[in-house]
Amino acid sequence: MSELKGLMYPRTPEGRAGILPGPPWHYSGEMLTVEFRTDPERVAELLPPGLTLAEDDPGAVAIIWAEWQSCSDTFEELLDPARAQYKEVFVVIRCQHEGTTFSRSAYIWVDKDFAMARGHIQGYPKKMSEIWMTRPVTVGRAGPRLEPGGRFGATLSTWGRRIAEARFTITGEADSAGFVNGHPMLHSRFMPAIEMDGRDSLDELVTMSGFDHEVGPVYAGDAELVLHDNPTEELDRFGDIEIIGGYYRQVGTSMGPGTTVHANPNPMAS
Amino acid sequence: MSELKGLMYPRTPEGRAGILPGPPWHYSGEMLTVEFRTDPERVAELLPPGLTLAEDDPGAVAIIWAEWQSCSDTFEELLDPARAQYKEVFVVIRCQHEGTTFSRSAYIWVDKDFAMARGHIQGYPKKMSEIWMTRPVTVGRAGPRLEPGGRFGATLSTWGRRIAEARFTITGEADSAGFVNGHPMLHSRFMPAIEMDGRDSLDELVTMSGFDHEVGPVYAGDAELVLHDNPTEELDRFGDIEIIGGYYRQVGTSMGPGTTVHANPNPMAS
Amino acid sequence: MSELKGLMYPRTPEGRAGILPGPPWHYSGEMLTVEFRTDPERVAELLPPGLTLAEDDPGAVAIIWAEWQSCSDTFEELLDPARAQYKEVFVVIRCQHEGTTFSRSAYIWVDKDFAMARGHIQGYPKKMSEIWMTRPVTVGRAGPRLEPGGRFGATLSTWGRRIAEARFTITGEADSAGFVNGHPMLHSRFMPAIEMDGRDSLDELVTMSGFDHEVGPVYAGDAELVLHDNPTEELDRFGDIEIIGGYYRQVGTSMGPGTTVHANPNPMAS
Amino acid sequence: MSELKGLMYPRTPEGRAGILPGPPWHYSGEMLTVEFRTDPERVAELLPPGLTLAEDDPGAVAIIWAEWQSCSDTFEELLDPARAQYKEVFVVIRCQHEGTTFSRSAYIWVDKDFAMARGHIQGYPKKMSEIWMTRPVTVGRAGPRLEPGGRFGATLSTWGRRIAEARFTITGEADSAGFVNGHPMLHSRFMPAIEMDGRDSLDELVTMSGFDHEVGPVYAGDAELVLHDNPTEELDRFGDIEIIGGYYRQVGTSMGPGTTVHANPNPMAS
Repeated sequence: MSELKGLMYPRTPEGRAGILPGPPWHYSGEMLTVEFRTDPERVAELLPPGLTLAEDDPGAVAIIWAEWQSCSDTFEELLDPARAQYKEVFVVIRCQHEGTTFSRSAYIWVDKDFAMARGHIQGYPKKMSEIWMTRPVTVGRAGPRLEPGGRFGATLSTWGRRIAEARFTITGEADSAGFVNGHPMLHSRFMPAIEMDGRDSLDELVTMSGFDHEVGPVYAGDAELVLHDNPTEELDRFGDIEIIGGYYRQVGTSMGPGTTVHANPNPMAS
Repeated sequence: MSELKGLMYPRTPEGRAGILPGPPWHYSGEMLTVEFRTDPERVAELLPPGLTLAEDDPGAVAIIWAEWQSCSDTFEELLDPARAQYKEVFVVIRCQHEGTTFSRSAYIWVDKDFAMARGHIQGYPKKMSEIWMTRPVTVGRAGPRLEPGGRFGATLSTWGRRIAEARFTITGEADSAGFVNGHPMLHSRFMPAIEMDGRDSLDELVTMSGFDHEVGPVYAGDAELVLHDNPTEELDRFGDIEIIGGYYRQVGTSMGPGTTVHANPNPMAS
Repeated sequence: MSELKGLMYPRTPEGRAGILPGPPWHYSGEMLTVEFRTDPERVAELLPPGLTLAEDDPGAVAIIWAEWQSCSDTFEELLDPARAQYKEVFVVIRCQHEGTTFSRSAYIWVDKDFAMARGHIQGYPKKMSEIWMTRPVTVGRAGPRLEPGGRFGATLSTWGRRIAEARFTITGEADSAGFVNGHPMLHSRFMPAIEMDGRDSLDELVTMSGFDHEVGPVYAGDAELVLHDNPTEELDRFGDIEIIGGYYRQVGTSMGPGTTVHANPNPMAS
Repeated sequence: MSELKGLMYPRTPEGRAGILPGPPWHYSGEMLTVEFRTDPERVAELLPPGLTLAEDDPGAVAIIWAEWQSCSDTFEELLDPARAQYKEVFVVIRCQHEGTTFSRSAYIWVDKDFAMARGHIQGYPKKMSEIWMTRPVTVGRAGPRLEPGGRFGATLSTWGRRIAEARFTITGEADSAGFVNGHPMLHSRFMPAIEMDGRDSLDELVTMSGFDHEVGPVYAGDAELVLHDNPTEELDRFGDIEIIGGYYRQVGTSMGPGTTVHANPNPMAS
């Protein structure tokens, strides 16, 4: 029989039909971050057993809109940009595990399948959605400049309903783009047993970090955020929120292998 | 900490933000099947180690276009049909494992994320795509009737390129809608270790079957199939194909838990 | 120079690149109609000068979800169903013109460009949108049967926001699928002068009717309708509404040339 | 009766439901231009009676990929970017009319309905399509820098089929981004009579130009272009083409009223 090739499904004779090329993956894009404070109980309820709240500012949350180009080490996806460009919104919280503070994506939405599959490898719980964010411009009047007064809008919709909307106005530059998404990620990877009896065939904690970071200036400013009630989302559980700050930054990074922090045995294995 | 709820990601406080409701799942829809014969080597190369070719007609393959409504046991998705309706194309081969013949989906594309995630639980290697198939009609001239002479078209595109196209003309009724997709499914479920070093944290063979089948008459007929060269698919490897037959049928079924046939231990577990 | 071919843009050497094939057009599909009563002032404000309210039940309005296959007289679009299938929602009011009662589409949304362009010829003020409606099924549990108790949902969204949602439960058969959409259509066709100074280069009233109707049974039932506030729509102006009835029917029809009722001269013509 | 408001359909009580806000419209975006030479007969066949070929280099054609943000004078669309962002591909030829040379869009595709409707006012024969073009980046490895060696890809697909694909590599800066799209536009605006008997109710030649141009540097380079055979497009009629050059530039402009060059009377007006 053949040796099937590919990182993710489908694994095939040549490996070119896989949903995702193999690592490393390179990313260049724009990130709009809104940090806010909720009741720490609303963060705690998002953590699986074994993870605890961060000690400082435990109710802090970041929601981040990002517009990416990404590619493999062949860079060929950049010349067929349908396969390189995608948009993403993720909600990041912090947690502690064995004395270390991590960032953790509690919710995340993308608009391309390759990004969704890549997220599943990395433990990002990605669903598909409709995402828009204003782009800065360098000429003309139809967009903000990256300077004080530049105004951005960002929206997230699923099943034809708005879930979240943000507005952001640059007031100046800053040293940091927030603190919630600043740690290595600690994610759960799981797959229910096909028996679907409550057991998980895959049950792991994994961590990963980007490398070869290259970032532009951080633009800080005033942010507004609305999280709508929605029958298929739970962002409304954050309740009354207090805005901490808003940040815009152009970001380049690369991602490759991560590290298994803990893996439970597959209970289905004999 | 909270008890997180949900079958699949994200697992959340209430469980309503999950990409997929829990089983069982009910399906009603239309299936257009084209069966063809390729060189058995082209089927064999799609099988992982441990699976062998079916003994009778080992080069037989089915490609199936389906348009579904699906829902959970609450049936609520049917009233918000964006969450119930999806289209699907799958390429089915047969294999033997320990003396039993199974069907196996070698390739599959869908157009909704909940269907993609459900497939990943079931071992269907689902990617997203753009899918169209003609609907039969009961009134007017803009569609085929379910009777001899009724003509259907079906297309599959990814990244703005046509991958596969079929045409089908009903010639009469038949007893069966083909033989390739007629066995319990035998699927691989895997997840690469986050170290992405060639090890799989999850590596299982699973089987499942539908229940509570309710089907309409089988319409058989003449079929044409074109599988285009494509840089991100490998259907062109089937080469020169010989059409076996075409079939159209309305199908209702339900799916729930399956059975783990074999699970390798998670090598990352201590 | 060449003789350019085609009914609509672009007109080209061969005529095959036009957005729309020439008439007649055949349609087969499903229509879910919800009729409701609003303040007649809310209907009157939708009429241009020269049209007046219908005398009987002047506040009656119909909102109709439809899922269509349509094609030209070549029927070739049916074999490339991306070019045949579309969904549509339209809001129909009635009006009087010179003693005759007409139906009139005040708002309409579709999800394919060829349908949008065809509507513009016919005076339907079509925009693009995301539309879903439950399909009836004949087998399985994932959909309503066309019989008492069958339940349908229907949604309309633009720019990622829900505009309108309906639910419908069949209670029995009926003789008619409502009365608001039962007259010939009277539509305005206009095009602002490129000077965009308030003059219209095209300014017509046109009428058209379908022919070769073939319809299935009318299923009547209980309907609910929610019209959401929306910054880019004005359905919320209908205010408190009273449901008149709900109807589901399979419909076949054909459309071809209509009749100009009145045309104002093009003020830009010398 | 009410005074209906709005530039384009639907005209409504408040004017906020129109498909398009009124002028002026501001645009900021990126344009990737590939100029090529075809047999002048292939350009001539795209011209309606009364327009003749440009005298110099009459077989020159430009195909332009553009990614835009656009907005009205309220700038509010920029904060709801689904309503501001769109992509566009247009094929530009040149022509002479009464001794003056004009540019003319023979084919054009966009991916948002407001852009489609705006084009129809301006005489751009817009259809919907799926469009992708590589974005330049300032940080990271997943995209070209605006400097020699920067590589771009661009694709255009309709009905799930690739129509056109371009690749472009920057070799240096240039003074001009080509010459084909450099004149005022001369466009036909027409609408068939509802009788669809060959008469046009609207039949005009119009011209318009942008104002308040603000442009970035022109990057010139090596370009490749593939125009695929396609059953619903006629780009393959350009046959063997010779590449003239490729150009990338960031562009800001505004558009408002144009000028009617010639209007035929509406033959349906009494």
